[in-house]
Amino acid sequence: MSLPAASHLDSLETPSAVVDLDVLERNLARGAAYASKHGFVLRPHVKTHKSLFVAGEQLRLGARGLTCATPFEAEVMSSVCNDLLIAYPPAGTVGARRVAAIRPDVQLKVALDSPQVLEVLAAAAETAGRKIGVYVEIDVGMRRVGVTPGGDALALAQRIGKYRNLEFAGVAFYPGHIRGPIAAQDDELADLAALLNATLDAFDRAGLTPPTVSGGSTPTFWRTHELPRITEIRPGSYVYNDRESAGIGACTIDDCALTVLATVVSAAVPGQVVINAGTKALGREPVRGEHSGFGQLLGRPDVTVSRMSEEHGILDLSKTDWRPEIGERVRVVPNHVCIVTHLNDLIYGVRGDKVERSWPVDARGRGFKPIS
Amino acid sequence: MSLPAASHLDSLETPSAVVDLDVLERNLARGAAYASKHGFVLRPHVKTHKSLFVAGEQLRLGARGLTCATPFEAEVMSSVCNDLLIAYPPAGTVGARRVAAIRPDVQLKVALDSPQVLEVLAAAAETAGRKIGVYVEIDVGMRRVGVTPGGDALALAQRIGKYRNLEFAGVAFYPGHIRGPIAAQDDELADLAALLNATLDAFDRAGLTPPTVSGGSTPTFWRTHELPRITEIRPGSYVYNDRESAGIGACTIDDCALTVLATVVSAAVPGQVVINAGTKALGREPVRGEHSGFGQLLGRPDVTVSRMSEEHGILDLSKTDWRPEIGERVRVVPNHVCIVTHLNDLIYGVRGDKVERSWPVDARGRGFKPIS
Repeated sequence: MSLPAASHLDSLETPSAVVDLDVLERNLARGAAYASKHGFVLRPHVKTHKSLFVAGEQLRLGARGLTCATPFEAEVMSSVCNDLLIAYPPAGTVGARRVAAIRPDVQLKVALDSPQVLEVLAAAAETAGRKIGVYVEIDVGMRRVGVTPGGDALALAQRIGKYRNLEFAGVAFYPGHIRGPIAAQDDELADLAALLNATLDAFDRAGLTPPTVSGGSTPTFWRTHELPRITEIRPGSYVYNDRESAGIGACTIDDCALTVLATVVSAAVPGQVVINAGTKALGREPVRGEHSGFGQLLGRPDVTVSRMSEEHGILDLSKTDWRPEIGERVRVVPNHVCIVTHLNDLIYGVRGDKVERSWPVDARGRGFKPIS
Repeated sequence: MSLPAASHLDSLETPSAVVDLDVLERNLARGAAYASKHGFVLRPHVKTHKSLFVAGEQLRLGARGLTCATPFEAEVMSSVCNDLLIAYPPAGTVGARRVAAIRPDVQLKVALDSPQVLEVLAAAAETAGRKIGVYVEIDVGMRRVGVTPGGDALALAQRIGKYRNLEFAGVAFYPGHIRGPIAAQDDELADLAALLNATLDAFDRAGLTPPTVSGGSTPTFWRTHELPRITEIRPGSYVYNDRESAGIGACTIDDCALTVLATVVSAAVPGQVVINAGTKALGREPVRGEHSGFGQLLGRPDVTVSRMSEEHGILDLSKTDWRPEIGERVRVVPNHVCIVTHLNDLIYGVRGDKVERSWPVDARGRGFKPIS
C-alpha cells in the first residue's frame, strides 16, 4: 500500500518526518557553492540523512565522495559512491573486518587516533586483500577523540608506513568545541588556525605533508575558508539544518528543511496541549538558551515543546494566545536533526501542502546479523 | 547471513542491545506472579519491547491481553493476541481510521480523554463496522493527558453511550507524577487512593460502574495492590528494567536485563575513554541524582557515560582505577530502556557469554506508507 504523489499533507499519518523540498534544494546548492567557491573537496557526512536519494543529490552537485560514521552507512552508500571516508575508529577485530569488507572497488579511507586501531585495521585490510587510506584524527580542543596535534599526531602518521595495506591519506579534525554564534568565533578560529599551521608545519618538516586536510563542523562551516591549508570539508547538518544550527547563525529558522508533523491529541490540562511527538519522534537533545525546550513550532516560534514522554510532547502555551483544537496538526522544528533521522524509517518530501515523494532512511540502524 | 546460536558475546558487533535471558525470564515470572497473587488482569505494555517473542512469553505466563501505544504496535501484536488496548488517544481522522482497521477479530479498546477524540473514533468505528471499547483516561496528578477525575470524567463516560459502535469499557489512569523511591510513596499513594475512591463512587452513583479500572506505573507497580478497586495493570518496563527503575527501588541493578554492548574506540584524552555507544544507541534520558550520566557500566557502577555525541559515549574514569584497553568491550545499563528498544532493530539474547538467540524489534517504527 502506498499514497499517491501529490497527496495533501493532511493525508499523512503523524508523527512523521517531513522535508520541505524547496528548502532542501536550496541548502544543497548553498553547501556545494561554498565548497566550489573556495576550492574545497566536498565530502558530505551522510549521518544527517542516511539516504541514497539525498546522497545522490549531493554527488550530482559536485561532492567528490561521502563521509560515513558506521560500517553500515558505508555499505549502503557504496551503491552510489566509490570514494568513502569512515570518520570513526573501527576498534576491535569484528568492526575492523566489516570495514575492510566494504566493496573492493571503493576507495576507502578511515579516520583513527591510535596505534591499536591502526594495527587491527591493517590486519583486516591484509585479510581482505585491499588498500585502506588512513586519516590521522587530531584533537583541536573538543577532547572527544583525536591525538594531540603535536608530536603524537606525527608519530601516528609515521607508523602507518609500517603496514603495506595502509597508506597515509591525510589529517582530519573536528572543531566541536567551537559552538558559539558564528560572529563570535574570531578568537577561537585564530587559535585553531595557529594550531593547524604549527601541526602541519611539523608534518612538512618530517617530509610527510598530508595529501588531504579534512575539517569543519556545522558551527564553523561557513568560515572554514578562514582556516589555513584545509583541502576538504565534511558538512552534515547543512542539508536539513535544525534549531541548533539556526541558534548559532549557521542558517536561519527558514532554512530548516526537516520538521516533525504532529497532531494535537489532548487539551485536557489548562495552559498546554499534548502532541503525539515525544522522545521517540524528536529525541531529547538540548539547545542553548533558557526554557528553550525540545523543539519549536514552525511559524510559531513562541510555542515550544517544554516536556516529553516517549509518545507525548507538551506544548507550552504560556507565551501565546493561540489555542489549537484537538486533531489540529503542527510542525515541529527539532533541536538536532540527525537524531530525528535515526528515529524514522521514511521521510516525506513536500512542496507547500503537497507531498511530492518519500524516501527511506536507507542506512538507519546498523545492519547487524541475526542468530540462526 | 546470520550468526550461529551459541556464538560467544565477542562475536557480536557493537553497539548492540543485549538481553540477559535469565534475568528476562525472572522479570517476566515476577510480574506475572504479582498480578496473579493480587487477582489483577495483566495487560503488559509492549512499548518497552515491541517484540512478538517477548509478548508471546507474557501471554504464555498469563497476560490476558496487551497494551499498545501506537496503531502500528497494535497491528503487529494482533498476530499473537486478540485483546488489545491502545492506551493513546487517536486524534484526527487519519489516525482513528487506522485504529479502527485493526484486525476485526481483535477485541479492541482505546483510552481517550476528550469528546473530540470520542467523536472521530466513533465515526471510524462506524465506517469500519466494528465495536470499540473505550477507557476514560483520568488525570490523577501527572498533568499530561486525562480528564479531571470528578464530573468531567463521568460526563465523558456518559457521552460514550451516544455512539452505537463504542462502549464504556473502563477507567484508566497513569500515576506518572509519583516518581520517588518506592518506600517513600506512602502519602502520595494515600492521596491517590482517596481520589480513586471518590471518582469511582461517583461513577457508581451514576449507575456507570467501570467494568475495568486499569492502572499502574513502574514506580508504583509493586504497591498497586494498596490502591482500591484496581482490576487491571499495564506494566511495561518490568521485562527489561533500567537504571531509573533500579534508582527508585522497583528493581535492583541486577534485574536490568538489557544492556548496550559497546567497544572502547579511543583513549586519546586522559581521564576518559570513548565507547561507540552515544545518543543513537542510548538515547539522552536523564536519571535522578547529580552527575549520574546517561548510563552506567555493568559490574562497574562507578563508571558512567558522562557526555555523548551521536556515535560517541565518554566514560568518566575519575572515580575508578580501571583503565580499559582500546578494543575492550563493556556493557552499559541504560537510564531508560524503552528508548533503547526504539533505537534498535534486533535484540540479542544471551546466557552468560553465549548468544543463544536474537529477535527483531517487530513494532519498531510506525509502519507508514510510502508515496508511489
